[in-house]
Amino acid sequence: MSATAHPDVRSDVAALRRHRLDLFPDPVVPFGDVVRAAPPGLVPAAPVEPDPDPVGAVRRVLTGLDGRGRELGAVEVLLADEALTAAAESRRRIAAGAARPLEGLPFGVKDVIQVEGSPTRFGSDRYADFRPATTARVVRNLRAAGAVLVAKLATYEFASGPNSRTRNPCDPGRRSGGSSSGPASAVGAGLLPLAVGTDTGGSIRVPAAWCGAVGLKPTLGRVPRAGTPPLTWTMDHTGPLAGSAALAGAALTAMTGVPPADARPRWPVAGAAPLTGLRVGVLGGWFRVAEDEVLRLVDAATEVLAGLGATLVPVELPVIEEIDPDAIKRILVAAESASLHDAGDDLDGYGPVVTQLLTGGRSLSAVDYLHALRCRTVLAGAVDALFADVDVLACATSAIVAPPEGVDAVALGGRDRVLATVVARNTSVFNVSGHPALTVPCGRVAGTGLPAGLQLVAPCWREDVCLGAGVAYEAVAG
Amino acid sequence: MSATAHPDVRSDVAALRRHRLDLFPDPVVPFGDVVRAAPPGLVPAAPVEPDPDPVGAVRRVLTGLDGRGRELGAVEVLLADEALTAAAESRRRIAAGAARPLEGLPFGVKDVIQVEGSPTRFGSDRYADFRPATTARVVRNLRAAGAVLVAKLATYEFASGPNSRTRNPCDPGRRSGGSSSGPASAVGAGLLPLAVGTDTGGSIRVPAAWCGAVGLKPTLGRVPRAGTPPLTWTMDHTGPLAGSAALAGAALTAMTGVPPADARPRWPVAGAAPLTGLRVGVLGGWFRVAEDEVLRLVDAATEVLAGLGATLVPVELPVIEEIDPDAIKRILVAAESASLHDAGDDLDGYGPVVTQLLTGGRSLSAVDYLHALRCRTVLAGAVDALFADVDVLACATSAIVAPPEGVDAVALGGRDRVLATVVARNTSVFNVSGHPALTVPCGRVAGTGLPAGLQLVAPCWREDVCLGAGVAYEAVAG
Repeated sequence: MSATAHPDVRSDVAALRRHRLDLFPDPVVPFGDVVRAAPPGLVPAAPVEPDPDPVGAVRRVLTGLDGRGRELGAVEVLLADEALTAAAESRRRIAAGAARPLEGLPFGVKDVIQVEGSPTRFGSDRYADFRPATTARVVRNLRAAGAVLVAKLATYEFASGPNSRTRNPCDPGRRSGGSSSGPASAVGAGLLPLAVGTDTGGSIRVPAAWCGAVGLKPTLGRVPRAGTPPLTWTMDHTGPLAGSAALAGAALTAMTGVPPADARPRWPVAGAAPLTGLRVGVLGGWFRVAEDEVLRLVDAATEVLAGLGATLVPVELPVIEEIDPDAIKRILVAAESASLHDAGDDLDGYGPVVTQLLTGGRSLSAVDYLHALRCRTVLAGAVDALFADVDVLACATSAIVAPPEGVDAVALGGRDRVLATVVARNTSVFNVSGHPALTVPCGRVAGTGLPAGLQLVAPCWREDVCLGAGVAYEAVAG
Repeated sequence: MSATAHPDVRSDVAALRRHRLDLFPDPVVPFGDVVRAAPPGLVPAAPVEPDPDPVGAVRRVLTGLDGRGRELGAVEVLLADEALTAAAESRRRIAAGAARPLEGLPFGVKDVIQVEGSPTRFGSDRYADFRPATTARVVRNLRAAGAVLVAKLATYEFASGPNSRTRNPCDPGRRSGGSSSGPASAVGAGLLPLAVGTDTGGSIRVPAAWCGAVGLKPTLGRVPRAGTPPLTWTMDHTGPLAGSAALAGAALTAMTGVPPADARPRWPVAGAAPLTGLRVGVLGGWFRVAEDEVLRLVDAATEVLAGLGATLVPVELPVIEEIDPDAIKRILVAAESASLHDAGDDLDGYGPVVTQLLTGGRSLSAVDYLHALRCRTVLAGAVDALFADVDVLACATSAIVAPPEGVDAVALGGRDRVLATVVARNTSVFNVSGHPALTVPCGRVAGTGLPAGLQLVAPCWREDVCLGAGVAYEAVAG
């Protein structure tokens, strides 16, 4: 501290606020680029066997998205011309024996991810006519690995909530989940093998579970977020939704920007690898407040892991009863979004959810915000400590299957609860803690046929552990 | 984000605030332990030649501190009994040929650093009777390297301001600077070879420069802060004040906890090493708003570096005119201190500066705080970019020599300025940016005989660069 009494801090605030910070192409972040420790070496994975006819494959995907995809409300924009051009290039490379790891693989991105020259709306009327001057790093990385961008997919405004425009492919009367609704609906419907989503409290995993897709929230900081305007700086994760855990793993490698030459296999990409010695911590307490049918499917799935040689260990996280991860998430989202969208003084053109969010964020004190961050450290430390005794954690991804549109409350654990407090109950804690978390479909509820998801959580930077277990599981369970 | 409208964020705040966070022994931090990237391998240094009679040396230091040290108001508590016991152990080790890197070297610590069982007041009446149950990591590391803790040294309440009780050894009518006043006064007076201070905006470097000592603010995150309650989590640095740059380097190594076996020399510990090829960026503009006499001494010092083979390169940091690092510092200090001291609802027992600080901090919004953090990213990036062209930056540590007690304004750059806005003008920017910054005495102003400091700033984690230049400089300039 300097050497005399403190000048009035309000005048400092006024002085700094005169320095405006732009929202695009990338807003200035509050903590430099690194919140957690830098990642160790990137995780390599096996190349995907390319489709021998990538142009045909891309054409089929475009047709499906244009038909069923639009019916489902999953599509924001189709990028047909550039996709077909890229597919032709993939055809040439395959013919020349120079295929890249994801050569010709069609993929879509949630429409919060900027693509140069293409409309990018962030789900917001305020940006209805916005065409970015930059392409997000994750898109550049996937393209460099040979994947072909075919579509921007639907989401809610700035990934801040659910998207009732997008239907659940398993039952169009049910919610698709948010905010990676378009990616989950399109992948769950089998219209796309791969999509890129973002996840601040469960926004990849919950819609993936509800729509029957695989979804991976990688370790915090694993996938570059440049060119993807955040909901928060501290809890957002970019990750894949895919038709299989094996493909999610290969996509993760490409998304991080691993040079193709380094793409050696690390986790099993097919076949029921034995899981002998793997200690699976089955989360109890808080994580068992879920629908009975969901719990039955999750228990059957962990028994499958046990059948592959894993040891099931009951584990608890008592501190979560005191420190609600969803409360932390809502405070950080509100405060950081309010700072992010501070460049415009007015709230004109934002929808009701974002308006409520930004208004709430402006009401928060610095002490409120810091207290939430400090509670986060306590909760994250408690999650991390669980990995002293187990290799991977298991629980239901969502406590419930996809609810019907229009329902805002649900009975669970003996009492009625606001739906919003239930949806991300089992997922947001791992946004708070930063641990990688995978959801794989683990069967369908008898009667409704709605899918449930098994969530597998690994130590930070060990996506290979949850992906390996997921790949082994899906090879047996189909 | 989860799947329905947002619950009211104020109820989340109330829920989380019920979870209280203690101040001692270590408050929960808001960002985990790592704000910046983790440090690369620790910097080793040469062992210091031990005094053949450590008991005698410690006794002399205790006598000096008890006499002149108390006159100067530099001493908080002498730890005579335990120091003499430790010195006897050092004598045995030296006799056995088993000396550790800092064997028998007496050191003191600023009284914000906890020592188990010893009074630790943090300069605060509120903690007049506090005896910690823990010893700060930095003290344990120095003791493990053989150094002998002899005293707790005076500071202002929670390192938040100047300490007019502590006199400047160069002129008792002048300020000693804050907040590492006791360490700077004792080391500057030659009463102690080494002391540990903390620096949030210049609190090691400014008092060191004013009192004629060497001071090093290491890279943000270099020296462990466990057991040292912060002023901020994001800007505080623990570092050495010493009689020479060579000793500061050896102390830094020990403070970080390098195992003795790894303590190989890396930078020159004595002698005028040639600086051929070293590009010294001489900071202009903002950094030249200083007293003429100070500028003359600094210019002479950079000419000494040129005489040793360095190339002088003029550099500018224009963005500092728009983004005041002191404003960032004051906002972060106010907000983070308000969160830190939030465990007590009342402000009873705090002095006026801390009361003003905490009241100001409570008034800040989360958006105010985040905006300051984001401005910090811009400024830190601009500082970092300077190192594309130079190896080390040079400027005056303080724009002024130690002012008389009671003076609160100073004429500088053609206008009168509040002293508080001048003191840390050249130092707080490197707390914002996290770069290591060393101050070495660079002569005395004719007439008053007051010392000035040359500040040398290196790329992050390259303390060896500024220390190497400092050691070479002091070997020539004495």
